[in-house]
Amino acid sequence: MSMKVIFLGTASAYPTPDRGVSCIGLKNEDWVWLFDCGEGSQTQVMKSEIKPGKISKIFITHLHGDHCYGLPGLMCTISQNNQRSEPVEIYGPEGLRKFLRTSLSLSQSQLGFDYIVHELKMIPEQYVFETSGAILTWDVNLSCDDVLHPNERPGLLIECDRDKVWELYDDNKIGVKAVWLKHRIPSFAFVIQEKPIAGKLDAAKLKAKGVPPGPLYSKIKAGEKITAPSGEKISPRDVVGPPRPGRKVIICGDTCWSEELLKVGQNADILVHEATLQNSCKDTAIQNGHSTPDMAADIAQRLNVKKLVLTHYSQRYKPINCTDTENQETVQILYDEAASVMGKDRVVAAYDLLSISVPLKSS
Amino acid sequence: MSMKVIFLGTASAYPTPDRGVSCIGLKNEDWVWLFDCGEGSQTQVMKSEIKPGKISKIFITHLHGDHCYGLPGLMCTISQNNQRSEPVEIYGPEGLRKFLRTSLSLSQSQLGFDYIVHELKMIPEQYVFETSGAILTWDVNLSCDDVLHPNERPGLLIECDRDKVWELYDDNKIGVKAVWLKHRIPSFAFVIQEKPIAGKLDAAKLKAKGVPPGPLYSKIKAGEKITAPSGEKISPRDVVGPPRPGRKVIICGDTCWSEELLKVGQNADILVHEATLQNSCKDTAIQNGHSTPDMAADIAQRLNVKKLVLTHYSQRYKPINCTDTENQETVQILYDEAASVMGKDRVVAAYDLLSISVPLKSS
Ligand SMILES: [Zn+2]
Ligand SMILES: [Zn+2]
Ligand SMILES: [Zn+2]
Ligand SMILES: [Zn+2]
Repeated sequence: MSMKVIFLGTASAYPTPDRGVSCIGLKNEDWVWLFDCGEGSQTQVMKSEIKPGKISKIFITHLHGDHCYGLPGLMCTISQNNQRSEPVEIYGPEGLRKFLRTSLSLSQSQLGFDYIVHELKMIPEQYVFETSGAILTWDVNLSCDDVLHPNERPGLLIECDRDKVWELYDDNKIGVKAVWLKHRIPSFAFVIQEKPIAGKLDAAKLKAKGVPPGPLYSKIKAGEKITAPSGEKISPRDVVGPPRPGRKVIICGDTCWSEELLKVGQNADILVHEATLQNSCKDTAIQNGHSTPDMAADIAQRLNVKKLVLTHYSQRYKPINCTDTENQETVQILYDEAASVMGKDRVVAAYDLLSISVPLKSS
Repeated sequence: MSMKVIFLGTASAYPTPDRGVSCIGLKNEDWVWLFDCGEGSQTQVMKSEIKPGKISKIFITHLHGDHCYGLPGLMCTISQNNQRSEPVEIYGPEGLRKFLRTSLSLSQSQLGFDYIVHELKMIPEQYVFETSGAILTWDVNLSCDDVLHPNERPGLLIECDRDKVWELYDDNKIGVKAVWLKHRIPSFAFVIQEKPIAGKLDAAKLKAKGVPPGPLYSKIKAGEKITAPSGEKISPRDVVGPPRPGRKVIICGDTCWSEELLKVGQNADILVHEATLQNSCKDTAIQNGHSTPDMAADIAQRLNVKKLVLTHYSQRYKPINCTDTENQETVQILYDEAASVMGKDRVVAAYDLLSISVPLKSS
């Protein structure tokens, strides 16, 4: 079971010819989930290894335009020649349903599949963001009273639990939780936790015991005892290796404070965290609700993550391999600052269309 | 006074790495007006000769996503380092105000300038679009009852006159009217008519009469009589050449029937008209509310326009100079079909970032 994190846009604020705004794909053999969908994401998806028809869930960290303005267009485009039987499920802050419904309805866009928006109910902490005493937000009506879009099915309003963790999704293979981050507007981090993966079946041993490949194999792999044709009772632990721990990936929205991750983010394989500005611009970064490499590395260290991946760069930082300009600041600055805390092997500076494999862990 | 039409996106339906969706700039020394604003328009503007701060008006032909989904992002991006004193004025079909207000408000995007949305009140004819008896649209609430965005100023609801012409804007230099087109949803064509341009001042003649350059020059150029220092009365017609006729540009939204243009579009210098599919696909084109080169050339001929510019191509037509593929259909097909009706000199096949000058006419 492969798992890849694919960076479709690594810019903050606005797209440029060489960098899209926020959009990240999480891909395995069965599906693709997108995290954020800034303007132009559909074009980035087309340039990537992602098959649009495989996109089954979309998670939006927050409603800033560089994280969601590409969602309506992406929905229209992936709907072409796509007659999914299951709806696409979309998760994000309150207000997301209204944004998508308004956009798709006013443009009279009919889709080839249904969709559902599940909203995360915000908590008061998420609205506290002050810069020199002034609250930067204003009252916006987040609820939509129009009729549903013809392809829309009613979604949930998901409240957080007592620990202020939002449980979004859970099946027998994988679960997704969210915690809140501090930003100019309510923003979330998504923690994707794979369930333990069943150990390998020792086929040679089974064969020796006279068990033919087929239903009995599936049964014992699923954890049940079986009876061999010889009458011998075989227990899973005799022929199935120990389960391997599931992988864990964290994808953060914009943030200048990610401490809530300490509740659910320990020992992640990958932490995707923004680093909009370099360490010397920490004050400006925080004023705008953003992080520096130092801040990203600090939370990564405290979470004991294997790898920190930086993204969401200010446009002042050109791509690392940018050759057509002299004395330009590049993302190398940001990488070096995080690497000096975590070590070079543990930091990756994402760029558009970078694909990172998350390897299976050993038992 | 230069006038240029700049094509920022020439694709129908969705953007691809080599073609943006609908966006056209009309540019002179003083301002830029945009016509449509599909997803990714802000990136196309950045690649072009257009200075974002010069954009003063935006006209939206219809609410299909490939014509308006880029508007909220463009507004945010052109707002950076842009402290306009005059608001940006936006014109488009009913529902446009709701789309923009919802997008900008939910993302809590504060702009560096104010904006106004003037809506064109639709008429019943615009809702009649049937394909094999089925009406493709559904009821959508077009009005917004939320509070205004902090940068929004109240706009007008513009009704058409008895001739079904919408008069949108008029100053002493230029005027803009709209007529309706037949499409799957209400769609408009915009007719931009420059006022006659004052003739050239014969400076040599004035000098000979002893008039010094300065306020008297402006006065006589504005059409007033002046008195030379010698006491001689000089009338404008003595020293100012005849006025030159203003230029006329028509920019159409998606359409499968553009006959309403016959009322106001005669003798235009440039007609920008869609040609989504080739002549042999006329039935499919019309079923989807689109035109073929033949249909575009037909209306161009009846309007006696100087130049027909084709745009809004289906993605099946690759760019004309596309080299990396064999036996591909290209836009050449569409150009040839229109040129066979109008003559090669009178047809242009637009491509992304093409800039066409509209020359001043002789008197
Ligand atoms: Zn952002
Ligand atoms: Zn943000
Ligand atoms: Zn279109
Ligand atoms: Zn259309």
